[in-house]
Amino acid sequence: MSDLYASRRTRLRERCTAAGNAAALVSRPANVRYLAGAAPRGAVLLLGKTEDLLVCTGPPDDRPEEGRPDENLRVQCLPGAGGDPAVAAADLLTAQGGDSLALEEHHLTVACHRRLRSVAPRLRLSDLGTAVEQLRVVKDEEEISCLRIGAEITDQALGELLESILVGRTERHLALELERRLVDHGADGPAFPTSVATGPNSGRRGHRPTDRRVEEGDFLSVCLGAAYRGYRCEIGRTFVIGTSPADWQIELYDLVFAAQRAGRESLAPGAAYRDVDRAARQVLDSAGYHEGLPAITGHGVGLEIDEDPQLAPAAMGKLDACVPVTVEPGVHLPGRGGVRIDDTLVVRPEADGGPELLTITTKELLAL
Amino acid sequence: MSDLYASRRTRLRERCTAAGNAAALVSRPANVRYLAGAAPRGAVLLLGKTEDLLVCTGPPDDRPEEGRPDENLRVQCLPGAGGDPAVAAADLLTAQGGDSLALEEHHLTVACHRRLRSVAPRLRLSDLGTAVEQLRVVKDEEEISCLRIGAEITDQALGELLESILVGRTERHLALELERRLVDHGADGPAFPTSVATGPNSGRRGHRPTDRRVEEGDFLSVCLGAAYRGYRCEIGRTFVIGTSPADWQIELYDLVFAAQRAGRESLAPGAAYRDVDRAARQVLDSAGYHEGLPAITGHGVGLEIDEDPQLAPAAMGKLDACVPVTVEPGVHLPGRGGVRIDDTLVVRPEADGGPELLTITTKELLAL
Repeated sequence: MSDLYASRRTRLRERCTAAGNAAALVSRPANVRYLAGAAPRGAVLLLGKTEDLLVCTGPPDDRPEEGRPDENLRVQCLPGAGGDPAVAAADLLTAQGGDSLALEEHHLTVACHRRLRSVAPRLRLSDLGTAVEQLRVVKDEEEISCLRIGAEITDQALGELLESILVGRTERHLALELERRLVDHGADGPAFPTSVATGPNSGRRGHRPTDRRVEEGDFLSVCLGAAYRGYRCEIGRTFVIGTSPADWQIELYDLVFAAQRAGRESLAPGAAYRDVDRAARQVLDSAGYHEGLPAITGHGVGLEIDEDPQLAPAAMGKLDACVPVTVEPGVHLPGRGGVRIDDTLVVRPEADGGPELLTITTKELLAL
Repeated sequence: MSDLYASRRTRLRERCTAAGNAAALVSRPANVRYLAGAAPRGAVLLLGKTEDLLVCTGPPDDRPEEGRPDENLRVQCLPGAGGDPAVAAADLLTAQGGDSLALEEHHLTVACHRRLRSVAPRLRLSDLGTAVEQLRVVKDEEEISCLRIGAEITDQALGELLESILVGRTERHLALELERRLVDHGADGPAFPTSVATGPNSGRRGHRPTDRRVEEGDFLSVCLGAAYRGYRCEIGRTFVIGTSPADWQIELYDLVFAAQRAGRESLAPGAAYRDVDRAARQVLDSAGYHEGLPAITGHGVGLEIDEDPQLAPAAMGKLDACVPVTVEPGVHLPGRGGVRIDDTLVVRPEADGGPELLTITTKELLAL
């Protein structure tokens, strides 16, 4: 495992050197974890001139799901709550004779930037940009294996919920029960706040559970995911409550299902992000659902639940192999409800069997 | 309620004007909520030259616990995910003829600051500092009432747990059950990740639940709190499992209890933060526990669980009436475990009966 983190840091160092930066300070937590194996609260990683350093504000938690710092990496723990890890990193860089430092300007605060300027006035500060986020897009098999386990846990939790009585229970309770089941099956915790939406709420992306109770005839849409060793996946399904779905429910479900399948089938190395989005979107568009469509059809997942790439109409770029993404079109009809279907898949070449579906819960319209 | 938010904005405007700033951009979510009534994800509040504006990246959720935007406030929703609320706010300010803008540099990223500079090059940007956090320290009775209800919910959830069988259950499960009970009793959700610590883990501040099971003879320490209408309180208690606590457990408990009582009794308007800390700390110190004591003895609570003031040895400042704080000394003996006792109280003058204890679960050493 140590080689893994060291080789990631080497790749980042090569990018930095190519951009004229001898050193970099990584502060965004998921980026720190990716390069150092763990990201204790407030920790920063210095990619130094002669040596790398993880600076924390206290001793790292000894929790396997939080990761452990790479044992080849020097770790410095600042005492108490007063120390500033970024300043400590800048001090070390200066001691190494470093004169320039690239920062994650999209994460670092203005106040922290000012402190760095004042404690190390001779350090030339520049922008590292999203260099680490870009490295994180393509996953190795170890990372995909964590996502796969997380997806299995998620499928189990969802499967168990479907076997229980749902009518009369609130969105909030169902969400809490799903989260408990995720942990029961070995998740670190939920990958994001579990969404359970009933009746008129169903089909809303990111709906936050309310006290509304499940009723006969409702659409019920759920979206959940496990975090496993830091890796986050997601699944979304829509069900109908009661024995006989209404015609509009069947039609809407079939439509969203077709859109989601079109999106999934367009996943391939070399496919443009926007083309995947369009494949799913045009199915909904041509059925007359122009308005109220979500801004994106899917997104990357990994150490964060919402990573690059974005599968959206204006997104620039093309998929690579070994990029895990969600495909999650949906339609929400105000006042009536709607349907969302969401899978996590890994882009694979056709020779390897095409996209690998991680979340395998059925996408038939189940009447519960 | 509208007058409430307007009057908070008026107080901030007075501070800004006194510091030579005609306008301010508030971006820290708890600060936005304090001044605008709600803080939809990514929203910023412009305290404009002629009009205030809440800029969101999408329509605000209609969830009472997330708050509703002040109806006297103009709200602008940017379409899609691409818009930058800070830039939209700067545009409006320029249209109002504003030429200077104070920013929360401790929250705003360097990248956002750069974007503002580039879209509004003639705007003079300065630092608002923690002006809003300072306004938030002293609470009004409406805020204290939310904290009081949250504390009642928390006491109920904890009380129910104590009536159930504990031996054999994992820290993780007990924590999840407490969180479910908080929601059952009307909390928005947990105020912070619930901590349940058993045996050698007990007494550790912020311990994150593991799969360790409760055993006979263990100390069990729990720390939890409800969020209610955005306001967050906390309670921490330590119990002993089994019928007869060991002598060292009784001694340690009595000591931490004495320290916590000393801290509570020193809460009064005008008391220095460091003196409250010292009152609790010296009880532990004089019993020989110099090392391993937490860096702080307590902290303010409100829209965030960890607010100003900090009750710590080097803290500067004095308590005011109507400031809610925690008092939470603890001792953790590596390998053996320990005790933490934590209450949320509101500072009140002696004429009003002295500090108001919000979390009323007994602090006797219960053997469960």
